[in-house]
Amino acid sequence: MNSSAERVTVNEVGPRDGLQNQDRLLSPADRVRLINSLCAAGLPSVEVGAFVSPRAVPAMAGTDEVCKALPMGDTDFSVLIPNRRGYELACDTGCDTVNLVVAASNTLNEKNIRMSTADAMAVSREVIALAQDEGVRVQAYVATAWACPFEGVVPMSEVLRLSAELLEAGAETIVLADTIGAAAPGAVRALCEQAVADFGSERLVCHFHDTRAFGVANVYAALEAGIRRFDASIGGLGGCPFAPGASGNVATEDVVLLLGQEGFATGIDLAGLLDSVELARELTGACVGGRAYNWLKLQAEKGRLQGDRVVSA
Amino acid sequence: MNSSAERVTVNEVGPRDGLQNQDRLLSPADRVRLINSLCAAGLPSVEVGAFVSPRAVPAMAGTDEVCKALPMGDTDFSVLIPNRRGYELACDTGCDTVNLVVAASNTLNEKNIRMSTADAMAVSREVIALAQDEGVRVQAYVATAWACPFEGVVPMSEVLRLSAELLEAGAETIVLADTIGAAAPGAVRALCEQAVADFGSERLVCHFHDTRAFGVANVYAALEAGIRRFDASIGGLGGCPFAPGASGNVATEDVVLLLGQEGFATGIDLAGLLDSVELARELTGACVGGRAYNWLKLQAEKGRLQGDRVVSA
Repeated sequence: MNSSAERVTVNEVGPRDGLQNQDRLLSPADRVRLINSLCAAGLPSVEVGAFVSPRAVPAMAGTDEVCKALPMGDTDFSVLIPNRRGYELACDTGCDTVNLVVAASNTLNEKNIRMSTADAMAVSREVIALAQDEGVRVQAYVATAWACPFEGVVPMSEVLRLSAELLEAGAETIVLADTIGAAAPGAVRALCEQAVADFGSERLVCHFHDTRAFGVANVYAALEAGIRRFDASIGGLGGCPFAPGASGNVATEDVVLLLGQEGFATGIDLAGLLDSVELARELTGACVGGRAYNWLKLQAEKGRLQGDRVVSA
Repeated sequence: MNSSAERVTVNEVGPRDGLQNQDRLLSPADRVRLINSLCAAGLPSVEVGAFVSPRAVPAMAGTDEVCKALPMGDTDFSVLIPNRRGYELACDTGCDTVNLVVAASNTLNEKNIRMSTADAMAVSREVIALAQDEGVRVQAYVATAWACPFEGVVPMSEVLRLSAELLEAGAETIVLADTIGAAAPGAVRALCEQAVADFGSERLVCHFHDTRAFGVANVYAALEAGIRRFDASIGGLGGCPFAPGASGNVATEDVVLLLGQEGFATGIDLAGLLDSVELARELTGACVGGRAYNWLKLQAEKGRLQGDRVVSA
């Protein structure tokens, strides 16, 4: 790793966003195995589960067990929480970061959580206030930040308004999330440029899905706009609830490869990521693996993977 | 199609660059079936074969038969030619455009065609002169325009020098080709911006492979730099001779989807492209299909594909 290279942070969401969209349900013990493997590969932060109803999202049942079995070390672990009850459950397990979600589309909030955007914002503000008192970091996801499956294109002004309110309420970072993988890079760049100008790059994260093949292109467009934090999922694990058979989150190994080649440092071990892909395959029974997976395997065989870089022989 | 949208041209290279890297050899008749399907989908230009040694590249044997059986219509057909002999064979079949290749890396020229770059340029100039006399258009590929498997990073100055000489000699367009799929979007943008400034967008084409997952991102970076012509391969058909198992050319359906969503018009029918992907699957026995293929299939079932656009229900 080039020590003078600018740092970009990759947050692994495979154990939550990825597994949540898989057919096979993994036991808490198997989810911990995957998390351990990701930590070993050097992921600086990992979303490890969600405190949601196990009836609604059976894949996330036992998130408390996962939290209790997390490895010691420098990794920052976070969990998704839908509401105050989820927040309390997360606190009981000693999580340092909770992820709140508000959709930028009123229709999606109504359908997903039976609340208007205004009501969802009120709940979020309440949870953020509690968390601030208790020293828990809150990361706020603005879901459907570019497009909603029901409303179509989401106005940039609405996304910026919600982001500003959530930051003002005390959220540490905002995740601009292309929940349905509908954003194209031009629109990504436009929103990210404005958000970086308004809030500063250190308060922003981007979250992309590869549903329409734009995952890596969107990461590049966001990078160009000054974003320096990204969510990604090992092997592209995941899918899209609105598009069966679609690709999942943008793959961690593809993003780490891109960032290295663009001259950024992630501190993540590409060879370690390949091990995690293989473990994800074994555990889920799904043929996961990002677009660059086969090529990376070949480089590994040739001894060309060195930390977050691919070197010539 | 939005009639006020700026036009971007997609040149289909699946029947040449794609099939050349497949295990199964297709008969000329089957290659013509694929070409017919691509023409039906509205591809404005198709590379249909190569006049190369059938011993060296068995997949391209019978390119003369393919050329004789091409459908009538507005499609611009081209063939790859390695040298004067290839040019003469192409002329015999009445092709309107021939594609010449010179690598920007001396080592690759030596290994591939046993000529130095200087000698390869001399041959190219000779063929271009002949073609100009005979009214045949020449498109010149500058291969390994970003990186060479033997020399590593290729200097931008060398690519620009060769491009200038080939244009001056009479080539109509230059294709900046990332032959081994090694270019990352930042480098793509840098070279394309300079090339557009030097030669004008109308003289330039970009050709990307998805080896490292950067195919679509590179198309976006080139678009940002002003490039308005792209090569692509149906279903991402192809591979990389230097990376077994790697992804092929950037997929035509992914590129057409991106261009539409970025507000450009291609005049290519997305539903027709899905038919071509299925035919390519049937003929090659390979599980081709771009990253967006499953999602596009779902949109097709919902009746949301309208020409080169995806519309809401």
